[in-house]
Amino acid sequence: MPQLRKDPVTGRWVIISTNRSRRPSDFTRSSTLPPSNGSCPFCIGHEAETPPEILSYRENGKGHWSLRVVPNKFPALRVEGMLDRAGEGLYDQMSGIGAHEVIIESAEHKVSLADLPEKRIEDLFWAFRERSLDLKRDTRLRYVLLFKNHGEAAGASLAHTHSQLIALPVVPIQVMEELEGGRRYYAFKERCVFCDMARQESKDGSRVILETDDILVISPYAARFPFETWVLPRAHSSHFETAQPSLLQSLAWAMRSTIRKIEKVLENPSYNFLIHTAPIQEGALEYYHWHLEIIPRLTRVAGFEWGAGFYINPTPPEESAQFLRDAGL
Amino acid sequence: MPQLRKDPVTGRWVIISTNRSRRPSDFTRSSTLPPSNGSCPFCIGHEAETPPEILSYRENGKGHWSLRVVPNKFPALRVEGMLDRAGEGLYDQMSGIGAHEVIIESAEHKVSLADLPEKRIEDLFWAFRERSLDLKRDTRLRYVLLFKNHGEAAGASLAHTHSQLIALPVVPIQVMEELEGGRRYYAFKERCVFCDMARQESKDGSRVILETDDILVISPYAARFPFETWVLPRAHSSHFETAQPSLLQSLAWAMRSTIRKIEKVLENPSYNFLIHTAPIQEGALEYYHWHLEIIPRLTRVAGFEWGAGFYINPTPPEESAQFLRDAGL
Repeated sequence: MPQLRKDPVTGRWVIISTNRSRRPSDFTRSSTLPPSNGSCPFCIGHEAETPPEILSYRENGKGHWSLRVVPNKFPALRVEGMLDRAGEGLYDQMSGIGAHEVIIESAEHKVSLADLPEKRIEDLFWAFRERSLDLKRDTRLRYVLLFKNHGEAAGASLAHTHSQLIALPVVPIQVMEELEGGRRYYAFKERCVFCDMARQESKDGSRVILETDDILVISPYAARFPFETWVLPRAHSSHFETAQPSLLQSLAWAMRSTIRKIEKVLENPSYNFLIHTAPIQEGALEYYHWHLEIIPRLTRVAGFEWGAGFYINPTPPEESAQFLRDAGL
Repeated sequence: MPQLRKDPVTGRWVIISTNRSRRPSDFTRSSTLPPSNGSCPFCIGHEAETPPEILSYRENGKGHWSLRVVPNKFPALRVEGMLDRAGEGLYDQMSGIGAHEVIIESAEHKVSLADLPEKRIEDLFWAFRERSLDLKRDTRLRYVLLFKNHGEAAGASLAHTHSQLIALPVVPIQVMEELEGGRRYYAFKERCVFCDMARQESKDGSRVILETDDILVISPYAARFPFETWVLPRAHSSHFETAQPSLLQSLAWAMRSTIRKIEKVLENPSYNFLIHTAPIQEGALEYYHWHLEIIPRLTRVAGFEWGAGFYINPTPPEESAQFLRDAGL
């Protein structure tokens, strides 16, 4: 059974994955993606190689599946069991209750999300939404992480395009920090910091990559990484899973366009994206605003950046934004 | 001039390194260390290839240098200039004032710190101490990061063994979190959380890698990474730079032994270490305790770990500790 453990100083939780424990010899320092020689478990015809399906979509409701959600074959957390909490002297732990699911974005062995038509990217966001609303009914779960690792340098272990979802009984520390920061700003200004940021960026323009009536794509002012990109809905909303159909449609268009720009300018880099949203059991929050962060994996992160949470970014966000803005779709 | 920018939500500062701006084509996605073909600027006889020396040590005070401190040739921050602070709408920035120095740990082209005799590792910690005390006199500077990137995967750009120092006019966010966490614990218990941790670990023993009368080396309870290792002084002290000679001697022995164990068990991995210490302008703090964190770079960090500060560790710290404990020196 995996275990959640809390750092007694910072309060950060980690998953100690005892059920797939790795010995020193397991850490091969060079790894490559398995070849796409027709033995990909995410390809059509290989459905039996994944755990039983949780959800699937079909184009126009007929034919074979175009998107499938399945449990991760090697889950970091499990839904079964009791959420036991315990102390160990000064330490705190709880049992590794949660969910770990894979969203297979295409029946064909496509290797980039941006190769898919817009409607199918919209489906991915629908699947995120639908799974979040379902998992929210399990009141032990407090947070749903929705993310994609694209390419080997970003941590993908299979080339076939897919995203993931991890539902947790705790709130991740960076989300806690954003919630606290948003609360502090709201207490001082009585406005949402993300709403203020969207207004200022849209007016200023120098860090804008693209915009629609309801979505703004920017290089953030204090970007940690070269070409770090944020996708912000203009209208205030704390929870991703409450997004309306028209917004998910805009989001799909904006994401497809942005990823195509990133792939063009940076020659198909590995990247991660992650939806930052409010904890699922909370009601609507005036001080938090969901958004999506995209991080191309271009530079090796050095030791002091890890250990201190302090980053050196060699590309000013205004330059990143201009390169991406100027690239055609 | 580099610029420090603050994320308006979390309060995290980043360096935007405008003076060595990188364009998309600069991000080659595979890089290798330059060969050690005698053209290494850190080797003896190549002193003219580095900026002018700040400090050097000689063995027994004679012969050629055995340790040299020089400014980084491509510094992330500069000491010259005014510390200007300014707002840009809702954003905050300040000029990139600070220091960025390299500690060359050996005149010979050694590639591991642990190849050096114990006394020379002690010299490294003396140099850290001496530079911290000197930089503290510049009251614009609030924090000194002391760290080592060993190996390419850890961000080292030169193979010749060296460490680095970055002095900042702000406190890094992870240090802020540790300071706040330590303060919270102290307010509740009237004890230092690190002192409590050292006592509990020493008594329990399951996560102890090695111990001396004044140093404890452990796999932390909530380790983020496989084989993450912390070196804790037993006696309470918030500031590394106040460490006494006998403690630096123990630290050198403990570090040499620990790195040799890590290199043996994990077959010479890349690693980072970083000293976590209190802000230099603060007086002695009852609630903070300096320590050193070592992170072998074994696994690729995936997207959701980045974005959420939430880690999955596939090796329980009790197992890491046992492998390292059992390895001879």
